Amino acid sequence: MSTTPWLRSSVEWLGDRLEVIDQTALPEREEIRTLRSVDEVVDAIRRLVVRGAPAIGICGAFGVALGLRRAEPGGIESARAALDATAAAIEAARPTAVNLAWAVQRTTRAAAAGATAEEMLTRAEQEALAIQRQDRESCRLIGEYGRAELAEVHRVLTHCNTGRLATGGWGTALGIVYAKAEAGEPIEVLAAETRPLLQGARLTSWELSSAGIPVTLVADGAAGAAMASGRVEAVVVGCDRVARNGDTANKIGTYTHAVLARANGIPFYVAGPISSFDPTIASGEEIVIEERPADEVLRFGGVQVAAAVPAWNPAFDVTPGALVTAFITDRGVLRPPYEESIPAALARAEERAGR
Amino acid sequence: MSTTPWLRSSVEWLGDRLEVIDQTALPEREEIRTLRSVDEVVDAIRRLVVRGAPAIGICGAFGVALGLRRAEPGGIESARAALDATAAAIEAARPTAVNLAWAVQRTTRAAAAGATAEEMLTRAEQEALAIQRQDRESCRLIGEYGRAELAEVHRVLTHCNTGRLATGGWGTALGIVYAKAEAGEPIEVLAAETRPLLQGARLTSWELSSAGIPVTLVADGAAGAAMASGRVEAVVVGCDRVARNGDTANKIGTYTHAVLARANGIPFYVAGPISSFDPTIASGEEIVIEERPADEVLRFGGVQVAAAVPAWNPAFDVTPGALVTAFITDRGVLRPPYEESIPAALARAEERAGR
Repeated sequence: MSTTPWLRSSVEWLGDRLEVIDQTALPEREEIRTLRSVDEVVDAIRRLVVRGAPAIGICGAFGVALGLRRAEPGGIESARAALDATAAAIEAARPTAVNLAWAVQRTTRAAAAGATAEEMLTRAEQEALAIQRQDRESCRLIGEYGRAELAEVHRVLTHCNTGRLATGGWGTALGIVYAKAEAGEPIEVLAAETRPLLQGARLTSWELSSAGIPVTLVADGAAGAAMASGRVEAVVVGCDRVARNGDTANKIGTYTHAVLARANGIPFYVAGPISSFDPTIASGEEIVIEERPADEVLRFGGVQVAAAVPAWNPAFDVTPGALVTAFITDRGVLRPPYEESIPAALARAEERAGR
Repeated sequence: MSTTPWLRSSVEWLGDRLEVIDQTALPEREEIRTLRSVDEVVDAIRRLVVRGAPAIGICGAFGVALGLRRAEPGGIESARAALDATAAAIEAARPTAVNLAWAVQRTTRAAAAGATAEEMLTRAEQEALAIQRQDRESCRLIGEYGRAELAEVHRVLTHCNTGRLATGGWGTALGIVYAKAEAGEPIEVLAAETRPLLQGARLTSWELSSAGIPVTLVADGAAGAAMASGRVEAVVVGCDRVARNGDTANKIGTYTHAVLARANGIPFYVAGPISSFDPTIASGEEIVIEERPADEVLRFGGVQVAAAVPAWNPAFDVTPGALVTAFITDRGVLRPPYEESIPAALARAEERAGR
């Protein structure tokens, strides 16, 4: 892991409990929440106390260990029942992020191979720790591949939060920013505020300014004017789930940036670990989009900002692969045609994991 | 004026003072502010107590009358000095909206023709009342032309607020919605919340739901997903200033909707009176864009939502005429090529005014 001072982890395992930075309290207060049960993990994921696809995956993986730790005594049968119930409960907390299901299933599989209840718990813990360690390394690799790809780029626009709060390391899209900053290269970030939950305003601005990286906030609707007026050299975003053809589910508003980037001749990059790519889905049409409560749009910070009308509040949108210049992954940069490059990268990753 | 019950004016002249609906207090409180001096008019325009290009124009025109009414006694010389100072102060309150300068200059010209200080005041008042009456009639005409143009359209997306709060009548883009509703035609509105000042959330939602018209609020970043998923049959927005080639300055975020509409094969209409068209500018490059305080982006409904970072906060963006399907004006529907149709419409309007 980097020694960079601003790089502290947002999810920490303490052997019998998880400590997470409460992202709903930022930037006002930096509060640590302790999660001791599966219910608390599910609640933290659902309420976005923990958010960001890789961070959710890590949190979910440790949640499996918590489920086993809290299982009724009763030997391996009782542990297996607890394992199944835990996995199902955590996976259902947020349906769109593929990393959550992936991390929970991986931890569950590892635990299931244990011969005793104690061994199942040890294996779950070890697997969750491995997922966290690998995510940190993935971020590092994404940062380095991205730094090479964006060598000539100094001003990027990003959406939502994809940094140390969202991952086990320094982030995906923001990992590239941190990699450039760490290498002493000039880098400035235009952060789209990302309504309704304002992750860009609350989290990305906080993360980058804490790290001493120049960041300027814009309303989501100002991104188009920023691109049209030459303020953006590249758009770099994260991803929650990528289909085999490159269609990308990510935070609502991402598709808009992609369309604007294309209209303005600006490259549009998606950064994420290979675990965000879902080999089981052929295109974005198969991606289930989570709809969240209208109240997130009608209220903010406890303040009612709209008349009491209905709101349509999808958590994600799907950006067609055709609008993505390249994917910057921990397995290198994937370029069109994605129908070939994505399955090939997934096969290489599978092969390596199998060795 | 329509007898429709929801149509109450946002700016009312009471002979020696103006009463305006305080749009910064909506939707929480419906408060009336009384403006008795030029300073109060300038302050109300600058703080967006009154907003919307035509409403600002009407308010500015009555501001000229207030300047004359409050002038130091001293006959016509004193009145002329007051007239010049008043016009300059009011025009400077918001630089981008052409209607403000247009209405102030028109009222000033009318007043200047008076032979005595008293006559100047009377003429200013009469001219301001005429501007208000004509704006009401303009809205009515825009509504009717728009209703014909959008005969087959039942679901529109709009941005910012362009209704009775923004104009002397029932509005421009929203005027079309009201015209359809009044005619008993089915109409549903998707209102983009319009950060940073949330005119869509605070004002458009309030206006339409008060009028019993179905309205659904979306975050600005969700407009793209709404268009891509077939929820929008047409986009209809207002305009603050239109160049001779159709380049349109309007509330920040408008350009984004135009690019998204084009990418999704959805018609994009701009509604506004002919007075929003500026014959003196050839293209959007000549339009001065007002930049507003960073605090509007860093705060949300009075709550600090971001770390203390810089923000870029342009009040408007410019949508290229090439992205506009048609302009719906009080002089009919203008279609491409705009280099021909806009100057022709302006010439006809000029000719009619000269008669």
